[in-house]
Amino acid sequence: MFTKIGRNVAVGFVLSCVTTVAQDPSSVPRVLTNPKFHAAADFVEKDHDRFVREIVQITEIEAPPFKEEKRAKAFAEMLRQNGLTDVQIDAEGNVIGVRKGAGDGQPIIAIAAHLDTVFPEGTNVKVRREGTKLFAPGVGDDSRALAVLLEMIRAMDAAKIQTASDILFIGNVGEEGPGDLRGMKYLFQKGPYKDKIKMFISLDPYGLGNDVTTGGVGSKRFKVTFRGPGGHSFGSFGLVSPAYALGNAMLKLSKMQVPSRPKTTFNVGVIGGGTSVNSIPFESWMDVDIRSETKEELNKAVDTFTRLMRDAGDEENRARATSQGKIEVEVKLIGDRPFGQIPAGAPIVRTAAAVIQTFGFTPTFGMSSTDSNIPMSMGIPAITLESGGTGSRNHTLDEWIDVEKTASVKGINIALGILLALADVQ
Amino acid sequence: MFTKIGRNVAVGFVLSCVTTVAQDPSSVPRVLTNPKFHAAADFVEKDHDRFVREIVQITEIEAPPFKEEKRAKAFAEMLRQNGLTDVQIDAEGNVIGVRKGAGDGQPIIAIAAHLDTVFPEGTNVKVRREGTKLFAPGVGDDSRALAVLLEMIRAMDAAKIQTASDILFIGNVGEEGPGDLRGMKYLFQKGPYKDKIKMFISLDPYGLGNDVTTGGVGSKRFKVTFRGPGGHSFGSFGLVSPAYALGNAMLKLSKMQVPSRPKTTFNVGVIGGGTSVNSIPFESWMDVDIRSETKEELNKAVDTFTRLMRDAGDEENRARATSQGKIEVEVKLIGDRPFGQIPAGAPIVRTAAAVIQTFGFTPTFGMSSTDSNIPMSMGIPAITLESGGTGSRNHTLDEWIDVEKTASVKGINIALGILLALADVQ
Repeated sequence: MFTKIGRNVAVGFVLSCVTTVAQDPSSVPRVLTNPKFHAAADFVEKDHDRFVREIVQITEIEAPPFKEEKRAKAFAEMLRQNGLTDVQIDAEGNVIGVRKGAGDGQPIIAIAAHLDTVFPEGTNVKVRREGTKLFAPGVGDDSRALAVLLEMIRAMDAAKIQTASDILFIGNVGEEGPGDLRGMKYLFQKGPYKDKIKMFISLDPYGLGNDVTTGGVGSKRFKVTFRGPGGHSFGSFGLVSPAYALGNAMLKLSKMQVPSRPKTTFNVGVIGGGTSVNSIPFESWMDVDIRSETKEELNKAVDTFTRLMRDAGDEENRARATSQGKIEVEVKLIGDRPFGQIPAGAPIVRTAAAVIQTFGFTPTFGMSSTDSNIPMSMGIPAITLESGGTGSRNHTLDEWIDVEKTASVKGINIALGILLALADVQ
Repeated sequence: MFTKIGRNVAVGFVLSCVTTVAQDPSSVPRVLTNPKFHAAADFVEKDHDRFVREIVQITEIEAPPFKEEKRAKAFAEMLRQNGLTDVQIDAEGNVIGVRKGAGDGQPIIAIAAHLDTVFPEGTNVKVRREGTKLFAPGVGDDSRALAVLLEMIRAMDAAKIQTASDILFIGNVGEEGPGDLRGMKYLFQKGPYKDKIKMFISLDPYGLGNDVTTGGVGSKRFKVTFRGPGGHSFGSFGLVSPAYALGNAMLKLSKMQVPSRPKTTFNVGVIGGGTSVNSIPFESWMDVDIRSETKEELNKAVDTFTRLMRDAGDEENRARATSQGKIEVEVKLIGDRPFGQIPAGAPIVRTAAAVIQTFGFTPTFGMSSTDSNIPMSMGIPAITLESGGTGSRNHTLDEWIDVEKTASVKGINIALGILLALADVQ
């Protein structure tokens, strides 16, 4: 998932916190002027063609929600080939590998990109290249970021960088759709690194590198199912139909009023139901996503939505015959992403901002719904960074990224700089 | 597919044609008073438990549209075990077997029940019995009728009946939903018996035996697909969505005005589309069935429906942003069942009516949409008969039939009597 919001708001926010950011966390100048960092950054530039090949390689292994195994195995192998020891796939399916620091294993900084895409099995994931543009479902979201993790490890090794902290590299499952952040929930609440990760970075699909996500948008997902008696399309014509109730529900939802600030949204994603063209369905359903920047507006939207669903069922029961049974509606919570917010003055935010400024950008800050929502909601310092370059149309079959070298390399090096400033270079 | 209509109309029709029916086709009294027919009818009564076991056996082999092979193989084997020689599965998947008559193979009378059900793979088709009632999806439509074919063969053999005509027994594919009568289309237009079948009987799921379908209701089926640019549920919020266009289309269709006489109906059967809960779909679709007793009303309904679909697309394009692309709608014909009508005075109708009267019932005549639509539309004498007993709720998971012996046996023997009166007994 990747979407930036509140940039206008963020500008004000940036201006107001420039004074704070001016007190750079001490490690930033030291790390960014270290010849080893320069060697690493140079390596990223020279190695760019290989990086692009790896984006393609990762993209072309399909990874639908709950079916990330194939890509996970391949990514674990790529981590190993890039010299990471101790690579494993945890019980939830996350690929995790440690790059040891100089210390005693504490603190651990984790950096993650997600394995899963929104696309179902059978989607054509072959990458098409036009100039510096790569086109394919998932090529940005989040294959580019997975390839950035590999590039970071290679660059650090090439420059013989030793960090103070251990760094946990993660290719995680369950970021998209029905995954409901299961990879992160397992990592932070159950897995072997539970309670050990002190800071967390999530890598977004693309973006120049100036934007830092410091807030997690909350979302709730629902499966709405209308059920009825069903029947023969001709013989039982006139009976209530779950399909018409669902149609009405979709139309009602489409007209629901939500504020643009705080940004609040709704979506009908997947729909289904029915057995054959000549049968009144006994069940018709839809999956709905509702999000907001504030808990209050999210709850308001969910309340209105729930009422609209019941209205749609009631209206169908009044519109057609209920002699064989009525339409019943079930609104079931299938996903719940917690809100989270990292304070502007938190060292992780100040460090990121200082690195971005050193690279000549003005940092912006926004809210989004990413893997960082989980650590943020638990009070663990977490940010989501851009992974370099540009792109668009993620979550569609037309998704593309531009790997034009200058912007692509700069974005990787900003993320690498932030990671190393947080982990400190010996 | 099984649904009776126009019974009120049919009563008038019956009264008006009683004088015609009074001129019984000559074979009826001769065949029905033949001791061999009585022996066959007695056998049906004695063999009833076995008949019920076979209904269960057939029902419990699932047979979704286009996936009838497993049931077809089992039914072919059952025909062979019941002594029918020359059983084959034709290129379309129909099971066909001949019971030779005394003649030179002409004329051939065909009698069919359909293998397919409306239910998708994985539906629980286990039969539950309560007293004389059997509950299971497809138990009536059309498993009972398939078992009737087996019972007819056994009864004729037990009574050593030789007919003048050859009889072609058929367990056919493609009667339901997307099948679009493909079994019958192949049989009458392409298969080895093309141009050879001179009369046709289709067996409906259940019914006491007094009703004869002499007219084929026409239907057209459509797949309506709305396509749009898709996008991220949060980042692209505000873009047009195929889901909302479809919802609106379903609601508009639900309000479409159609006459009750001639009966005209519409139905949204199966719906689908979308990739994940957090993506605006790039495609949402529905399968629609439209039927009428007259061609004129069918065409009118189809015209209105088509206009409503375009309106729904246009309204979505006005309701939300089209900056990434517009909603396009495709209305594709996926099924077309021709109309057909057998004249009241046709020998096949008069023979059926005479047999029904001999059994003490007043025949009724109606229109429906069955396998007979194909031969009817080609001018081949064809009727659809009830297969005995009672039942209800076909095309739903609550489908049931009552195999209470008296009504069950009487219905079988009426159908057998009509078949033998048409085929003549030597």
